[in-house]
Amino acid sequence: MPLLISSPFDYIPPAAPHFTQLEQSTATLFNTTKLINMEQVNNRQIVLKNYVNGFPKESDMILESSATINLKLPEGCDNAVLVKNLYLSCDPYMRMRMTVTEGAYFEPFTPGLPLQGYGVSKVVDSRLSNFKKGDLVWGETGWEEYSIISPPKTLFKIQHTDVPLSYYTGILGMAGMTAYVGFYEICAPKKGEYVFVSAAAGAVGQLVGQFAKLLGCYVVGSAGTKEKVDLLKNKYGFDEAFNYKEEKDLTAALKRYFPDGIDIYFENVGGKMLEAVLSNMRLYGRIAACGMISQYNLEQGDGVSNLVFMVTKRLRMQGFIIGDHYDMYPKYLEMIIPLIKQGKICYVEDFEEGLENAPAALIGLFSGKNVGKQVVVLARE
Amino acid sequence: MPLLISSPFDYIPPAAPHFTQLEQSTATLFNTTKLINMEQVNNRQIVLKNYVNGFPKESDMILESSATINLKLPEGCDNAVLVKNLYLSCDPYMRMRMTVTEGAYFEPFTPGLPLQGYGVSKVVDSRLSNFKKGDLVWGETGWEEYSIISPPKTLFKIQHTDVPLSYYTGILGMAGMTAYVGFYEICAPKKGEYVFVSAAAGAVGQLVGQFAKLLGCYVVGSAGTKEKVDLLKNKYGFDEAFNYKEEKDLTAALKRYFPDGIDIYFENVGGKMLEAVLSNMRLYGRIAACGMISQYNLEQGDGVSNLVFMVTKRLRMQGFIIGDHYDMYPKYLEMIIPLIKQGKICYVEDFEEGLENAPAALIGLFSGKNVGKQVVVLARE
Repeated sequence: MPLLISSPFDYIPPAAPHFTQLEQSTATLFNTTKLINMEQVNNRQIVLKNYVNGFPKESDMILESSATINLKLPEGCDNAVLVKNLYLSCDPYMRMRMTVTEGAYFEPFTPGLPLQGYGVSKVVDSRLSNFKKGDLVWGETGWEEYSIISPPKTLFKIQHTDVPLSYYTGILGMAGMTAYVGFYEICAPKKGEYVFVSAAAGAVGQLVGQFAKLLGCYVVGSAGTKEKVDLLKNKYGFDEAFNYKEEKDLTAALKRYFPDGIDIYFENVGGKMLEAVLSNMRLYGRIAACGMISQYNLEQGDGVSNLVFMVTKRLRMQGFIIGDHYDMYPKYLEMIIPLIKQGKICYVEDFEEGLENAPAALIGLFSGKNVGKQVVVLARE
Repeated sequence: MPLLISSPFDYIPPAAPHFTQLEQSTATLFNTTKLINMEQVNNRQIVLKNYVNGFPKESDMILESSATINLKLPEGCDNAVLVKNLYLSCDPYMRMRMTVTEGAYFEPFTPGLPLQGYGVSKVVDSRLSNFKKGDLVWGETGWEEYSIISPPKTLFKIQHTDVPLSYYTGILGMAGMTAYVGFYEICAPKKGEYVFVSAAAGAVGQLVGQFAKLLGCYVVGSAGTKEKVDLLKNKYGFDEAFNYKEEKDLTAALKRYFPDGIDIYFENVGGKMLEAVLSNMRLYGRIAACGMISQYNLEQGDGVSNLVFMVTKRLRMQGFIIGDHYDMYPKYLEMIIPLIKQGKICYVEDFEEGLENAPAALIGLFSGKNVGKQVVVLARE
């Protein structure tokens, strides 16, 4: 999107991220504010070109190299922080924001503006008492070098810095919380239960499997390459793992690994995998519906034809969005930080260097290119 | 099934119902016991001819007119009651017991033996201290004039006889408990919420709608004839009702009745109706999966292609079988008996007279022939 700059000194960048219409109005307000003598820097952005149909392509996003930004918050911008983005998180749910879907309950991105997502950032300027210049933070930010977050909704000050900073895009951020709430709260697991995790080598799945092992469950994971299957078994300690692409009959595959059935399914995939799982669930089983990555690029979702098992096996399927549960973050940190430091939990990240490579990294999620949590490195400080 | 009678005096009827293999062994044991001088009466039975594929037909069941039974429990039959069946209940779940399905979690009927189901009966003989001759009971019995229930699993002594006795096949029995537990426990309803009930004029649906109205919810029901739709609106007090057979687009129909979406769906139907409902659910909606009558006669169930809404709308779908919840029966009676007596709840029953008409009545459930609870009258006392 060509940016409307009337003169070098009264340009204000499109104050990303724009999470709501209200904030977009605020951004418009900033555009009319006259600013003089501010420090201008380049602010490269990944901008959504247009809404996406089907599988997203790199060309659906544009690297906008000519935008600039002042490194001071403009006057009137009282409920905001300005951050330098260090690490961006690539997450499957972002695909849903690339399309306008009725009832999707995700605010769609705005074509012409930067994508939004989770990231780790450093505060450059702040008008909020709980964030000050130099603070490291994680939360929702823009796919650009600098972002004005106004007002911050999901933004946490990073307290523990003796762990890798990038972890706050994953195990110490949204993905970690998703695994924690999804497994412990939604699945209500008990020691010895049989747990299946799909997309198990991903940002969330690798943690769910390790949490389940720590609790004393039998855990099997599925993934899409031999390398990932090896990781599941040899690094994360899953009891078994299989490559779903090599299984002609997923129902039979699950039957092989769970001759007595599945108590808990951590659902990241949907479609045919869910159908195969339903056939293999045990009485009173629980399904935490965390995501359904196989479905996001389809115009018409795969049909699941055996939901009658929900009745006959008395199953519970519960969808959740982690944004509803961040009140549990302190409790989660209390649990996870010692586990990381003691080496009882490991976390694999897949780094892509440079904002310009962010679109390819994001798209790679849908072909399973990433091994572990997909992170884009913008700057290391 | 021709019954094996070695002489008029040592015949023991096939001690129906045979709920488990263990009990079938017990029945075999009885067959070897020699009985003399017992009172023999005719005991007509509805026997399953063979396992059913697809839509059940009357010819899948046989009226066995030649069986006889002693009106005293045989010696050695210590954990049993012998009952005269008065009313039999026709219930959709019985279809599932007419087929052997892996993982169905219903014990299939045995070809050559009487069907089993819920009914209201009178105790003729008892070896159990909690049931005595003359007691009226409701629970699981056989599709025959007299049954030996050994041992009784779900069998309740009827305490309140100032209400129609047939009600214990419905509002005061399994259907009532299903509506009560499904709505109040599984759906966790709140005053003012938007409730949709499918198969709403049936044994369970009519109650769910009335419970929801009593709580102050907005309630819409679907049914398959104009007569039923009229009942829903004019007798049960649903806010709205529609004939699903007249709607080309169920998603659009629900959108019309729920412009702001559905908080609670009481699921009796499955398939395309469930799909339409998922599109119309609100955030944090709840689905009580009580039954899926549209699916029971299908070799391959209908595909539900929009389960991704489970995630994005944070929905909970919970299947249940009322047999898990009978501990709540006294609490339910405490609530429902006064409501019936005060005329605050009504209940419509559809009576079929005579055991010989039971197969047609059962099959009628799947074409929606019944209006209200389908009951078969064997005897009125």
